[in-house]
Amino acid sequence: MPEVPTLAQVAAAAGVSPATASRVLTGSVRVSTSTRRQVHDAISRLGYVRHRAPRGGSGRRCDQTVAVVVCESAQRLFTEPFYARMITAAEEVLTGQGIPLTVMTATSATSTIATPQLVAGGVDGVLLIGARERHPLVVTLAASGIPVRSAGRAPDGIDLPYVDMDNADGGRQAAEHLLLGGRRAIAAIAGPPGLPAARDRLEGFTRTLALAGMTGVPVAYGDFTHSSGVHAAQWLLRRMPHLDAIFAASDAMAAAAVQTLRRAGRRVPDDVAVIGFDDAPIARRTSPTLTTVRQPVEEFAALATRLLLMSMSSPETAGNNPVLPTELVVRESA
Amino acid sequence: MPEVPTLAQVAAAAGVSPATASRVLTGSVRVSTSTRRQVHDAISRLGYVRHRAPRGGSGRRCDQTVAVVVCESAQRLFTEPFYARMITAAEEVLTGQGIPLTVMTATSATSTIATPQLVAGGVDGVLLIGARERHPLVVTLAASGIPVRSAGRAPDGIDLPYVDMDNADGGRQAAEHLLLGGRRAIAAIAGPPGLPAARDRLEGFTRTLALAGMTGVPVAYGDFTHSSGVHAAQWLLRRMPHLDAIFAASDAMAAAAVQTLRRAGRRVPDDVAVIGFDDAPIARRTSPTLTTVRQPVEEFAALATRLLLMSMSSPETAGNNPVLPTELVVRESA
Repeated sequence: MPEVPTLAQVAAAAGVSPATASRVLTGSVRVSTSTRRQVHDAISRLGYVRHRAPRGGSGRRCDQTVAVVVCESAQRLFTEPFYARMITAAEEVLTGQGIPLTVMTATSATSTIATPQLVAGGVDGVLLIGARERHPLVVTLAASGIPVRSAGRAPDGIDLPYVDMDNADGGRQAAEHLLLGGRRAIAAIAGPPGLPAARDRLEGFTRTLALAGMTGVPVAYGDFTHSSGVHAAQWLLRRMPHLDAIFAASDAMAAAAVQTLRRAGRRVPDDVAVIGFDDAPIARRTSPTLTTVRQPVEEFAALATRLLLMSMSSPETAGNNPVLPTELVVRESA
Repeated sequence: MPEVPTLAQVAAAAGVSPATASRVLTGSVRVSTSTRRQVHDAISRLGYVRHRAPRGGSGRRCDQTVAVVVCESAQRLFTEPFYARMITAAEEVLTGQGIPLTVMTATSATSTIATPQLVAGGVDGVLLIGARERHPLVVTLAASGIPVRSAGRAPDGIDLPYVDMDNADGGRQAAEHLLLGGRRAIAAIAGPPGLPAARDRLEGFTRTLALAGMTGVPVAYGDFTHSSGVHAAQWLLRRMPHLDAIFAASDAMAAAAVQTLRRAGRRVPDDVAVIGFDDAPIARRTSPTLTTVRQPVEEFAALATRLLLMSMSSPETAGNNPVLPTELVVRESA
């Protein structure tokens, strides 16, 4: 493997001073176009790569590279409003620190493609969103030694620092609200079982019902989308025609349940109460409006980003895994 | 500057073979967790950076890094459906070639932050979306020598290969349709004047009206969003109370114009015809449905991505700047 050139060699090859070459790399407008071209030609000829300091070195923050890795396809990235809120909030923290927003998508199927770029591609830190069980990239990142902060509890058996929302307590609050409202034939539409947040919501919900003596709660699984919510609600109605309450792990699935129930001739909330999760904008646009569990998405993303940046400069801060509270918002549907 | 270590040195420091170290970097699951940790520890200790071959070298494609750079904030990235369609289509082409999707956002204000990572951060090619005049990053990329393909004509005076849609001809088709429909008091809601696509739409439109003897067409400027469309339509109604047609440079602004006209007591299309641009999903959801100029967004993104990949391996192919046709879709609003 050939020796990698230094910036000084690039400057010499371009016939300019190292200071000028450095200004070109930082995009300074005080360099003439012809000088800029000479420097870029030299970079291209020599195959120069900006040097990455060994970790713990004293690199200036504005040289740092953070990848926001979303364990989904671009199609899901753009259709699930949760990701838009997370990434917009993360961008604000990053650009405030002089770090550009870089987003990578990686499904289980495409994660081997993304691995080399992350693990040895000069990335100084990773904000991980949507980490789920058996996702190869999550396993690789956990072993990589790269500073990582997972927004959402890491899957069982994976040792990654995280920030979480109290999903289990959100499930508990939903169950208590339904029990206090006198509901006794209760069902759940859960999220993907491999996603810790989805599992915690369901477990907090069913555990609270079990404490009230209610076991064997029917559960249909969806993927947080509207269409999966329709299928799940139809399945629950066939399985338990006289159900009087549904807790859904996302507002999109709760809105789908409301629509499905009404098409089946059930009144919401009179015949069937429905509780969602997120407090997404859609919760205020449905009719009736959705009772739901609010998660503080922007605060969550900002905190995860700030803790990632801290652990990039002080690795000893990585051990702290804060959990933000969730809160039941009572509207019309339950 | 210290010498940058090679993969062989990483392997030696980790006490494994270079083949094993290489497998760790590509995320192979055939390596034990403890070995993986040893290799990553060595990478971290030594500050190893995956070597980037000088351009024109014979790097395997799956080692390549492509950045999709969107000249907007994350907030706009997620609220403008055009970007979702573009990036989803680009992801399909990239992952099909073994290249992960990496998206960077860079407004004029944050572009100096993004510059070092792009120009000397090991990026092998850039797909540029939303390039506009006086955007510092666009100027820097044009001088950088990095293979770039702009999706959308490059701003005047900037030498970058591009793929374009025939925006001017879309404007022409809209104008002819209104003239053939007998409209004579015609106004336009244009997009940002610094964006070539927006300028071309307006110029094709006003040039065609001028050929029919209609000059001095009132123009209000928006930024493609619904709220800017409302303001623009209100301004046009004050300026020209008896207008009988509006051409808007996006479907979101056209839908806003329809809403504003109806609130002002005008019937669409009876009193005022409205034509949009995009043929976005919203064009079929408005009442009346929108007559609009269709742009082949997915084809456009896929072609730009493929031409970028070609120019990364064969720089001589960069000179070709294809333009895809646009097409008037007649529905109810005009």
